[in-house]
Amino acid sequence: MADESFTQAVPAFEIATRLDRLQSRLREAEIDAAVIVQTADLYYLSGTAQAGHLVVPAQGESVLLVRRTLERAQVESPLEKITQMGSLRELAPALAEAGVSSGRIGLELDVLPAARYLDYTRRLSAYDITDCSEQLRALRAVKSAWEIDRIRDAAAMISGIAEHMHAVFRGGMTEIELAAEIEYWVRMAGHQGQLRMRAFNGDLHYGTVTAGPASALPGGTDTPLVGLGVNPYIGKGPSSRQITAGMPIVVDLVGSSLGYIADQTRCFSAGVLATRLLDAYELSCEIVAAVSQAARPGRTGSELYELALGMTGELAPQCASGTRVSFIAHGFGLELDEPPFFARAWDHPLEEGMVFALEPKFVFPGEGAVGLENSYVVGARGGECLTTAPEELIALSL
Amino acid sequence: MADESFTQAVPAFEIATRLDRLQSRLREAEIDAAVIVQTADLYYLSGTAQAGHLVVPAQGESVLLVRRTLERAQVESPLEKITQMGSLRELAPALAEAGVSSGRIGLELDVLPAARYLDYTRRLSAYDITDCSEQLRALRAVKSAWEIDRIRDAAAMISGIAEHMHAVFRGGMTEIELAAEIEYWVRMAGHQGQLRMRAFNGDLHYGTVTAGPASALPGGTDTPLVGLGVNPYIGKGPSSRQITAGMPIVVDLVGSSLGYIADQTRCFSAGVLATRLLDAYELSCEIVAAVSQAARPGRTGSELYELALGMTGELAPQCASGTRVSFIAHGFGLELDEPPFFARAWDHPLEEGMVFALEPKFVFPGEGAVGLENSYVVGARGGECLTTAPEELIALSL
Repeated sequence: MADESFTQAVPAFEIATRLDRLQSRLREAEIDAAVIVQTADLYYLSGTAQAGHLVVPAQGESVLLVRRTLERAQVESPLEKITQMGSLRELAPALAEAGVSSGRIGLELDVLPAARYLDYTRRLSAYDITDCSEQLRALRAVKSAWEIDRIRDAAAMISGIAEHMHAVFRGGMTEIELAAEIEYWVRMAGHQGQLRMRAFNGDLHYGTVTAGPASALPGGTDTPLVGLGVNPYIGKGPSSRQITAGMPIVVDLVGSSLGYIADQTRCFSAGVLATRLLDAYELSCEIVAAVSQAARPGRTGSELYELALGMTGELAPQCASGTRVSFIAHGFGLELDEPPFFARAWDHPLEEGMVFALEPKFVFPGEGAVGLENSYVVGARGGECLTTAPEELIALSL
Repeated sequence: MADESFTQAVPAFEIATRLDRLQSRLREAEIDAAVIVQTADLYYLSGTAQAGHLVVPAQGESVLLVRRTLERAQVESPLEKITQMGSLRELAPALAEAGVSSGRIGLELDVLPAARYLDYTRRLSAYDITDCSEQLRALRAVKSAWEIDRIRDAAAMISGIAEHMHAVFRGGMTEIELAAEIEYWVRMAGHQGQLRMRAFNGDLHYGTVTAGPASALPGGTDTPLVGLGVNPYIGKGPSSRQITAGMPIVVDLVGSSLGYIADQTRCFSAGVLATRLLDAYELSCEIVAAVSQAARPGRTGSELYELALGMTGELAPQCASGTRVSFIAHGFGLELDEPPFFARAWDHPLEEGMVFALEPKFVFPGEGAVGLENSYVVGARGGECLTTAPEELIALSL
């Protein structure tokens, strides 16, 4: 069925450039072809997330083998070679047709389920299987001008958070109710809702809205703040706790556009906040300003992590980074947990075009948490801010 | 930090029974211990989803090794033995302490990322690694009375969908806007938002709201209906298309309670619907009635699939089952894609306490889709319905 409903979101020049760059990396790593199956990687390299296998030889033309809906993939992807794949038995012949009859095949071993990996090792027994996830993640970490524009669009979706908080906040509402009001607002603006994470067991939708003591609760996720969550199965994010006078409110919210995201945290308070929480918020703003400014090409994530931690002074025990998590900034794009990381032992140099969400957050058990988060792109003069909401901590009327 | 914020959601007797049953299955399969790391399995067997490793020996006491937040896990889980694990190096000693110094270790190879699997094979080189996901999935497929009550709670959350549709629907609104109104409504009622799926690349939040031609579009997901989605990266669910006169509206909505879900689809129309769509909806209701009634212990999923398909008659080419997907019902619980499946070649006999969501859906390209979906528990007299919203297709005023 040909249908005019489908659209191409990612331009042809983007896909061509990305595949070229991946092929260079494959040749450098002496990998003869990559076989891509994970949704984020598939969309990044082909423009469609329709279930399939994308075969990228180290030299020559890539081919997308689509499992279900050829017509949809053909519209969404600018690739020339898109064919139907009825069975996994067709994978080895497709590799041969792409000019790769032996050698090393790269798979996304960081995300590919073990059972599927073992199945591929049998089906591709003529090849050596290796991990190409490092090449993919490094490639995706550096954003193009087109991608930065999408991230700006995503940031624009959440720039009006302060006005919206003024409109919907009522003292005594629960964290979940406040989250519902914020999620409704961005969903009405076309938010994709679900966010994607690469980490095993990682999932999130929209972001995390917490307040007061619940913001300060520890938990199992690799995030500075966790929250109580609606139940122990979710175990993070907003809960049915009420938001009352004197509580800080942390709105960690992710905007979206064509799959790309922008990550931003703003703080509010229910009425007047204790001075030491205001001071910690002020320090968070100072760290964000200094570290983003220092995030130039060539600097490493570990240097910037140390720079940030060096600024925490007496508040070091309250800083989530260094006590709960070992990073203070993370990359993002199609997934929420992309490189680079400003983290202990993350010694890769930053490159122009990398983006990072910088989030020094301070935790006061029994009281709450505060912190600012902006998204930046690395440029010659430091990080350029992409998130545009005003940074002031706003006291809301109860 | 001891904190009274955390709660135990899953009762001790549930956890004890589940572990006993898993241990029987492990002994039957000659697996000496299972090491559980995936969130749904971890919560199911321990009551907490805090990051960790749950070691379940085929005989003797299980131990939960917690990565981050011991105190939280200790409150949430009724297990006796819960300890901190600083490094994966402690895993082999923990197995030895549980009485398993050699033999076969079961891992969740259906979901465990390949890189982690390869790491475990090195760290646990004294053992044979095998897949225990079949044992886990079979165990989880049969629900306890306590679990059925949670699913009833989840179903109650979405029982008022018709009243809510009357309240919020306006002709000309977009699919996304309607989805936002429905999601807001269940979120305010405490919905967990994100749903979890076991399938690689599977993700969903709340459900799927589509209308008119967009409902009928094909796509890459293994679901009867797909939708256009907000962008090709999401590639499913609601889009920015307007809902106008004569369109059928399909509200596939999942309620949640303590991590458990209930799956329900109701149909509406924007004004008056074409007769053939109404006829197809009527047929969907008849199939649901007949097949749920026939779903008794001992019947197989493939028999019930054939029974359903045999009823489609002249509408067989419109039935999503048999043309787009090869199932007509799926199990659910903590995940949306659990066994049993009423599917081609699914030849396991049903057991009392299994639950299934039965969803015969009919697709009319260019017009839309219709279908009913209820959640049931298998009992001696057939499926007992757990979802309680009225089944009539309701024509909404424009």
